[in-house]
Amino acid sequence: MTRKAAIIGGGVIGGGWAARFLLNGWDVAVFDPDPQAERKIGEVLANARAALPALSDVPMPAEGRLSFAGTITEAVEGAHYIQESVSERLELKHRVFAQVQQVAPGVLIGSSTSGFKPSQLQENAADPGSIFVAHPFNPVYLLPLAEVVPSPANPPEAIAQAKEILREIGMFPLHIRKEIDAHIADRFLEAVWREALWLVKDGIATTEEIDEAIRMGFGLRWGQMGLFETYRVAGGEAGMKHFMAQFGPCLQWPWTKLTDVPEFNDELVDLIAGQSDAQSGHHTIRELERIRDSNLIGFMRALKDRNWGAGRVLREHDERRRAAFHDGEATGAPLVMAQMQVLPGWIDYNGHMTESRYLFAASETSDAFLRLIGSDMDYVASGFSYYTAESHILHLGEARLGDRLTGTLQVLAADEKRLHIFIRIMKGEEAVATIEQMLLHVDMKAGRTVAAGAHVLDRLMPIAKAHQALPRPEGAGRFTGQRKG
Amino acid sequence: MTRKAAIIGGGVIGGGWAARFLLNGWDVAVFDPDPQAERKIGEVLANARAALPALSDVPMPAEGRLSFAGTITEAVEGAHYIQESVSERLELKHRVFAQVQQVAPGVLIGSSTSGFKPSQLQENAADPGSIFVAHPFNPVYLLPLAEVVPSPANPPEAIAQAKEILREIGMFPLHIRKEIDAHIADRFLEAVWREALWLVKDGIATTEEIDEAIRMGFGLRWGQMGLFETYRVAGGEAGMKHFMAQFGPCLQWPWTKLTDVPEFNDELVDLIAGQSDAQSGHHTIRELERIRDSNLIGFMRALKDRNWGAGRVLREHDERRRAAFHDGEATGAPLVMAQMQVLPGWIDYNGHMTESRYLFAASETSDAFLRLIGSDMDYVASGFSYYTAESHILHLGEARLGDRLTGTLQVLAADEKRLHIFIRIMKGEEAVATIEQMLLHVDMKAGRTVAAGAHVLDRLMPIAKAHQALPRPEGAGRFTGQRKG
Repeated sequence: MTRKAAIIGGGVIGGGWAARFLLNGWDVAVFDPDPQAERKIGEVLANARAALPALSDVPMPAEGRLSFAGTITEAVEGAHYIQESVSERLELKHRVFAQVQQVAPGVLIGSSTSGFKPSQLQENAADPGSIFVAHPFNPVYLLPLAEVVPSPANPPEAIAQAKEILREIGMFPLHIRKEIDAHIADRFLEAVWREALWLVKDGIATTEEIDEAIRMGFGLRWGQMGLFETYRVAGGEAGMKHFMAQFGPCLQWPWTKLTDVPEFNDELVDLIAGQSDAQSGHHTIRELERIRDSNLIGFMRALKDRNWGAGRVLREHDERRRAAFHDGEATGAPLVMAQMQVLPGWIDYNGHMTESRYLFAASETSDAFLRLIGSDMDYVASGFSYYTAESHILHLGEARLGDRLTGTLQVLAADEKRLHIFIRIMKGEEAVATIEQMLLHVDMKAGRTVAAGAHVLDRLMPIAKAHQALPRPEGAGRFTGQRKG
Repeated sequence: MTRKAAIIGGGVIGGGWAARFLLNGWDVAVFDPDPQAERKIGEVLANARAALPALSDVPMPAEGRLSFAGTITEAVEGAHYIQESVSERLELKHRVFAQVQQVAPGVLIGSSTSGFKPSQLQENAADPGSIFVAHPFNPVYLLPLAEVVPSPANPPEAIAQAKEILREIGMFPLHIRKEIDAHIADRFLEAVWREALWLVKDGIATTEEIDEAIRMGFGLRWGQMGLFETYRVAGGEAGMKHFMAQFGPCLQWPWTKLTDVPEFNDELVDLIAGQSDAQSGHHTIRELERIRDSNLIGFMRALKDRNWGAGRVLREHDERRRAAFHDGEATGAPLVMAQMQVLPGWIDYNGHMTESRYLFAASETSDAFLRLIGSDMDYVASGFSYYTAESHILHLGEARLGDRLTGTLQVLAADEKRLHIFIRIMKGEEAVATIEQMLLHVDMKAGRTVAAGAHVLDRLMPIAKAHQALPRPEGAGRFTGQRKG
């Protein structure tokens, strides 16, 4: 049964939550009194649809149904999970919780609050044990982190359930065991922000110089290891204690201004906003969002290739999705197995995507399918594998820089030893290439064709059966040079 | 003429500088009284050799000559640039500068100091105007940032020259206009470090939880945009002023502990070192270094694909190297055009690299060569391009997970319209595949073969001529199925 999430507050953060739930197959009801909410959520959702599937190697589930509720009561009715992302005003959050708990007692309510402690959120609540902090990071539909902060009032089972839901939508719930103002990550952000404001105010550096100081150096380190693991490596063979001894004395040196905060006034705001315009004003916010998302996809795919950090979260999420898929999502439609964007490095000197990248796109598609049916790395390590015996490529259109491509796969026929597939590389509704392939299942040691393992066939055959209902593709069964019609 | 860099202090940072200079073709003399210095530098250099070339699409220059000097005097003799990376003790640095300037007056001396201001470094120096801060970030051979901090004593021409040298070795010199303790980036690191020590000491979070809070969220953002650009995007349509107004009040809230610092004692050191062991102790430092470098390569290649941030620095560095190459580096040897590592996503279900990735490796190699001779994106935009008419692939060996591959290119023949090349995909000294290709130069609008532009031929022909001296490859000129010998 499709579950329902209620999203209270539909700004950038609420919209990001809505997109994450929807793209992971949940129905979503949004409540936000802002008359612009529907448009704003639509824009976040458009970004998310273009980005999140590019991280997945498993077919995305059917998108859930999005609705806009006129009241909180309507939004939370029948909800299995509620996420609150209204403004950072405690009395407003209390009012929201009171209304929610009148109609949805006992349903988990995660709060996106950056700063409030869960015990503050729970004050005077009808059911304090259902209210906790689930603090995400923008863009919510891409970044895995959600800080989960309970108070002693939350039953452990409730928090375990909340973490499970967050994992289901691809997040990394970081359980913070003691509540504290601003949780963990935002304390670092606040420290850096305060220091940055001083540097700008004192004319030491501009916003652009500060951004370069971050992204050309330690920012690159922090996307893959954090503070301590980075320093552990920097300490080298001498180890963490040596590193700390070396930098211990600095604690007493005037290396930060953080014993004080700058006065927040119009002058400071103008200074920073002006510098930011000079730095980034040649891009619209929409452009910057797309650039950011594309960069994040690149980082996260690089980590996924290496099974490290956020990439490991992506792999684990795929694993869950794979299980869900075999639990009954197989339908009579070609499977969407790969999502790609044509990057500058993919296009050749004739201005369109290189031939090798079409083959690459096809192998991304078939590889993902083989993983889906259990012919994965472990299976290969056990000595068995599918081997491509024959391929036929039909070039039907052109892909150009920036185009988003989808690789779909249809099983034409399958038996114990053979797998006959048809791959379409789609640009929107248009197939730019099709690749028909015959794969043979081999015993690698014996060097001969053998029947695939039972667990592979158990997954493959229901899909093959469902695909028999599909029309046979026009391009299938051709020989090279054959005339059409 | 090969230039010489003197590296005073050969730890992790000094070793990283040495590697960067060497791999960019400079001779390097290292002075470090530590009897282990040679071994330590050798290990950093091995890491750098495995990593830095993977970021380049232009042939690396011949590596410079590395020597170990017995005295500072010997190290700096004839040096064109000197980098000091000794311990953070001001009187030690002063002593080094005094010795250096006795024998090498007027030669630029960059200091890797994390904290001292240039005016402090310059105190009592014979030539204060040659001494400045060039603060790098570990790993120095990969991360582009170098904070360049002058004092009023430094002539602007000297600092301009220093920045030029840093750009030549692929770095991003960030000119910091006003000197300040700890420059810019380390002030942020120190602020985060102080806050992190509190969180661990107070038992709010472990080192591992803190690292996850960073790398699953804002760390990913900061590798590609910094603090201000990230917040500009987060502010959405309402803009930077709105964002600041929203978070302005937090400045007065207790969101950081940074009005105070924790006492630095054995207890705190043991607590943190113990947690770090639990978190990362299952990897050796060498393993962590390789994991970090591989992740950084993934991030930086992703940014290079997108021409953004550190990736733009890589592209600009390639552009410089390309110019240097045509100024006389063309030699009678196949050109090393591409460096790749076989990632988990590249291997197929038979355990070795997929066929499409061999073609991909070949096209990475030929694409880089075409860019080298000026047939780049701008050239294509002007309506001309090389087009692959024919390819012959010979599979000679196997590439497996983690293997490092090199794509070399030999020009077999070239005239105005045709380019006949031979690509080897090398695993160490062994060719795992060769790809022979005939490329035709086309006028894309007219749809016919035409002579290439003069600037392309001017670059191509000297290489083709130099390559005529090379033996014709055994695998060239074969037809499919032809017997050997």
